[in-house]
Amino acid sequence: MATDTHTRTSDKTPVTLLGLGAMGTALGRVWLDAGHPLTVWNRTPGKGDALAAYGARVADSAAEAVAASRLVVVCLLDDASVGEALDGADLTGKDLVNLTTGTPEQARARARWAEERGARFLDGGIMAVPSMIGAPEAGGYVFYSGSRALFDEHRATLAAPAGTSYVGEAPGHAALHDVALLSAMTAMMGGIVHAFALVRGERDIAPKEFAPLLSGWLVAMAGSVGQTAAQLESGDYTEGVVSNLAMMTAGNATLLDTAGEQGVGTELIAPFAELMAARLAEGGHDDEGTTGIVDMLRSPARRPARR
Amino acid sequence: MATDTHTRTSDKTPVTLLGLGAMGTALGRVWLDAGHPLTVWNRTPGKGDALAAYGARVADSAAEAVAASRLVVVCLLDDASVGEALDGADLTGKDLVNLTTGTPEQARARARWAEERGARFLDGGIMAVPSMIGAPEAGGYVFYSGSRALFDEHRATLAAPAGTSYVGEAPGHAALHDVALLSAMTAMMGGIVHAFALVRGERDIAPKEFAPLLSGWLVAMAGSVGQTAAQLESGDYTEGVVSNLAMMTAGNATLLDTAGEQGVGTELIAPFAELMAARLAEGGHDDEGTTGIVDMLRSPARRPARR
Ligand SMILES: NC(=O)c1ccc[n+]([C@@H]2O[C@H](COP(=O)([O-])OP(=O)(O)OC[C@H]3O[C@@H](n4cnc5c(N)ncnc54)[C@H](OP(=O)(O)O)[C@@H]3O)[C@@H](O)[C@H]2O)c1
Ligand SMILES: NC(=O)c1ccc[n+]([C@@H]2O[C@H](COP(=O)([O-])OP(=O)(O)OC[C@H]3O[C@@H](n4cnc5c(N)ncnc54)[C@H](OP(=O)(O)O)[C@@H]3O)[C@@H](O)[C@H]2O)c1
Repeated sequence: MATDTHTRTSDKTPVTLLGLGAMGTALGRVWLDAGHPLTVWNRTPGKGDALAAYGARVADSAAEAVAASRLVVVCLLDDASVGEALDGADLTGKDLVNLTTGTPEQARARARWAEERGARFLDGGIMAVPSMIGAPEAGGYVFYSGSRALFDEHRATLAAPAGTSYVGEAPGHAALHDVALLSAMTAMMGGIVHAFALVRGERDIAPKEFAPLLSGWLVAMAGSVGQTAAQLESGDYTEGVVSNLAMMTAGNATLLDTAGEQGVGTELIAPFAELMAARLAEGGHDDEGTTGIVDMLRSPARRPARR
Repeated sequence: MATDTHTRTSDKTPVTLLGLGAMGTALGRVWLDAGHPLTVWNRTPGKGDALAAYGARVADSAAEAVAASRLVVVCLLDDASVGEALDGADLTGKDLVNLTTGTPEQARARARWAEERGARFLDGGIMAVPSMIGAPEAGGYVFYSGSRALFDEHRATLAAPAGTSYVGEAPGHAALHDVALLSAMTAMMGGIVHAFALVRGERDIAPKEFAPLLSGWLVAMAGSVGQTAAQLESGDYTEGVVSNLAMMTAGNATLLDTAGEQGVGTELIAPFAELMAARLAEGGHDDEGTTGIVDMLRSPARRPARR
């Protein structure tokens, strides 16, 4: 909370931060608290006032902010805004860390773009919400991929706001990890909503009594991730299977029938049930679990047509 | 493992068990080990041989097995097989516990059917696989609903194979809890498969290194179940929301685009994304999370048409 952090005598790496939305502001606060000289810029003026009160220097333009530090962190809305914001800036010799959410291909293109401009590039995918930034006990972390040299050199600075997980030189890998985890979470949240919809019509089932049963079950069943990984590595999709595709397909009929009885739409569970049925119908997969559906998802011809 | 368990001197409740598939056999073994006199029957003869070696009496017909004990446990393939198996049996004065998986409506109808025949009825939904039966440390349990008197009287006997969770007098509630948890698990497993499909094409992402990141994230995010429950109880769907519908809908575009880039089908994440977009389009829900989709799933007119 010191107001004198931005002095020439600080031994901490100077940081330039572009983007002072909810996430950028949380990041900036941590670097200031840790004693890093911080230069900030935001498209709409005024958003840097709070950080300025804690010692940040507010630049008038993105180009001016970029000029202030070798380490430049960008946390904007989307990839297009990164291109716009950095349009006139001189990136020669800069270490550019992009914490803006995007697709792997956007990260790959942005890496080429940065290298053409003489900068080293590291992409990041933030697995945290702003309230978890600077609170290591909250368990948030950031996936990083791209320049290993940049990551190693700035590791301590990058680790101040949240844990770091470096997932490879390929610049798209951070975004890919980010999106893969968020996609699985989205599907799980769909299942949670479906489960609550099933019990919602029953007055004597209290959501708060149902909740720990549901979350406990999901936590226990998340352990199946390890089995899927082992099967993908061995190529034996029957390895350790206890509930096989035939049993699950029979069980899916009960799940779908129950949704019908309770007046609940089936769109959040039917597509996976259809994939299981299609996999079973291919023949030769009766003793497998669901791992073969990884291959089906990657092969349009093997997927059932959606109604 | 004593072979003399089935004697008149046992102080343990005698049990009749119909159905010696994988699950029935696991159940029977536990009751024998615990010293309960056990009478078993299976449609296809010979499946009781292993239990007979440990002291079970094998009946020639279901009716004969039912006659042997007041407590009759049924664990068959599906509800239709329960009706067939019990067709000629005298259920007067019996305590019928149905551990056969079915829909809530099947359980309700089976409860009426049993009461008409003079039996008390308890339905059960088994949240375990056979290897977890008799192994309390494995965390398996059974949802029970229906006759509270039956449950209370036989609680110790029922608790021998797995933990018990009584969820109400309404006979359909055990099946409803069972199906709700399995449905959420199915959706989560779809998300897991989708996540592995996304990273599957990248040779330098090892499934076994990716797995703990994915499972750790899902376990952390399963905590959102409690927030959904709190919102359903308070009616305030903005309560505690950090990532709102507007942010999530923007994020969903990145998830869908990434699937496209990686050549992965979107059917396991698109339906929930469409529901979020439809909820947002209704207006007035920008600051909510996904809880409002519980209501949409229960209201066909509010759901987007599936392509
Ligand atoms: N918030 C979270 O929970 C969270 C979690 C993980 C990852 N992230 C990611 O972090 C990034 C920032 O998120 P946030 O929550 O801070 O978003 P936010 O609060 O909406 O802030 C968006 C920022 O982007 C700027 N911006 C938008 N378009 C721009 C343009 N064309 N040129 C220059 N600047 C532009 C905005 O500037 P103005 O002030 O001028 O509009 C603002 O600084 C996003 O990629 C997000 O996906 C966020
Ligand atoms: N196994 C699990 O992981 C698991 C987990 C939770 C719940 N459950 C539930 O437990 C129940 C039994 O499962 P299971 O794994 O033991 O199944 P299983 O191994 O396939 O055994 C099915 C049993 O049902 C009998 N059966 C089928 N149709 C019949 C009919 N028309 N009349 C009389 N008996 C009939 C079979 O007799 P035959 O020997 O004559 O074919 C066999 O005893 C199912 O409802 C299942 O959903 C199982």
